[in-house]
Amino acid sequence: MKRNLTEYIDDYKSMIDQQIEKHLNKLQIPEQLKESMFYSVQAGGKRIRPILLIASNQAYDHYLEKTFSSAVALEMIHTYSLIHDDLPAMDNDDYRRGKLTNHKVFSEATAILAGDALLTYSFEVIVDDPNLSSNEKIKLIKMLSKKSGPKGMVAGQVLDMEAENKSTTLEELENIHKLKTGQLLQFSIMAGAFLGNASKHELIHLKQFSEYLGLIFQVQDDILDIIGDESKVGKPIGSDADQQKSTYPKLLGLDGAREKKNEYVKKAKEALFKANAGESRLVELTDYLTRRDH
Amino acid sequence: MKRNLTEYIDDYKSMIDQQIEKHLNKLQIPEQLKESMFYSVQAGGKRIRPILLIASNQAYDHYLEKTFSSAVALEMIHTYSLIHDDLPAMDNDDYRRGKLTNHKVFSEATAILAGDALLTYSFEVIVDDPNLSSNEKIKLIKMLSKKSGPKGMVAGQVLDMEAENKSTTLEELENIHKLKTGQLLQFSIMAGAFLGNASKHELIHLKQFSEYLGLIFQVQDDILDIIGDESKVGKPIGSDADQQKSTYPKLLGLDGAREKKNEYVKKAKEALFKANAGESRLVELTDYLTRRDH
Repeated sequence: MKRNLTEYIDDYKSMIDQQIEKHLNKLQIPEQLKESMFYSVQAGGKRIRPILLIASNQAYDHYLEKTFSSAVALEMIHTYSLIHDDLPAMDNDDYRRGKLTNHKVFSEATAILAGDALLTYSFEVIVDDPNLSSNEKIKLIKMLSKKSGPKGMVAGQVLDMEAENKSTTLEELENIHKLKTGQLLQFSIMAGAFLGNASKHELIHLKQFSEYLGLIFQVQDDILDIIGDESKVGKPIGSDADQQKSTYPKLLGLDGAREKKNEYVKKAKEALFKANAGESRLVELTDYLTRRDH
Repeated sequence: MKRNLTEYIDDYKSMIDQQIEKHLNKLQIPEQLKESMFYSVQAGGKRIRPILLIASNQAYDHYLEKTFSSAVALEMIHTYSLIHDDLPAMDNDDYRRGKLTNHKVFSEATAILAGDALLTYSFEVIVDDPNLSSNEKIKLIKMLSKKSGPKGMVAGQVLDMEAENKSTTLEELENIHKLKTGQLLQFSIMAGAFLGNASKHELIHLKQFSEYLGLIFQVQDDILDIIGDESKVGKPIGSDADQQKSTYPKLLGLDGAREKKNEYVKKAKEALFKANAGESRLVELTDYLTRRDH
């Protein structure tokens, strides 16, 4: 009997959690550094990106063991970006997902170094994976460094920072999110499909899918900042408005933002069908991300 | 006619500078991020690590084009570590090599992100190098991630931070420096020799050499903090003593520190001979690092 989506997510979440722990546990490093890395990696992340990576792999030639190292690396890079993003010099957040941020529990210096360590270690995790061929390692490291580096996620963070307290067009806003949130989501989808031997044609449509998915993710984030339940979202509601951030609801109104999201969902699913993944878990996961409440 | 060491260093320094510029120039990224990355990479670094990498390569099968990407990656990682190290939450330095530190010129947020970008980009530079075979790329990324990550340089930074304002034994001090300074120096030597097809036997002795070299480097740094010329060193003299840092002169006295340095130089050169590199530029570079005044 086919598992329902909740069971599917729970199963892979615990599998990914185990893999992450395995890689962190084997580090023989200063205790404070290890605790700080563990703290943020285990601070209640939903493992959406690794789950998307595995689901994308399953839409093609499924080989679970090959996906683990990129799934772990991806989550470590996501976590490092959150640790650095929360720093006083950046977003200055005391809480994330309802828990104190890394620098509040440890120190700013430790938080900076834990982020650096997670980023660097993610490349080691992939390059040391005995289940991957040399060419797979190279392709994955190429994708991961490009999508998380100065042309990808880091560029998005810089543009996001620059956009604060000034008016932004919808186009500029989408460019920021395509980089800041979209690039790592794109890695999830593309890395999984690459390891599943998806064709060039399929990868082109998956890339489109991942771009829409990133935008859906962001619109929903913005909507939750207005109508969300603070205890679920894990951060104060209305903080975007306080910071005068450009958001979809601000630019389009709440109904306009919802319409926009539905338009993206439609396009995302069209792209999935063209990528021959129209029957995969990626369809359900898209709906799940569309209606998530935290 | 053989170039003297100064000409040798100058020639390779400008070659490395060009390679670094080439890689940074081709980045199409937000202007502020690019400027910030450029600023620190060009802030007067002596390119000691890349030059050691090339010299180590030349001690074996010389293939200059193969060394460039690791030389550039190494210098970018070294630079990122300095940017993050200088941050207010870490060493809180306003000047480095006589120039304002990155966060003083740009902002703390930009400095954090420029460091993240340089670290991530360094892996991309290696993985995209058309002069390297797949196995060379994998080996280099493996070495670089291990030596700069949580088991290597980052561990050293954490231990260094923890050692501040408390008494440290010589053994603890050496462990800190082996990680914080030594691991990247080790990458210089090992990566260069690996690309030169050094034998396993040679690599074992080179590893020893690089460990002594790291210690020489540190003893000299500590000595310069006492007797150095402020205009050459580029930072205030006596800052270690002000911070109550454990240093070689503090633990052994100034003469004791010099003796220790000479002992390391002797051992370093012995290791070089055993590695069949006793006639290479590495010997002269060891002397150069021993007597450097900045």
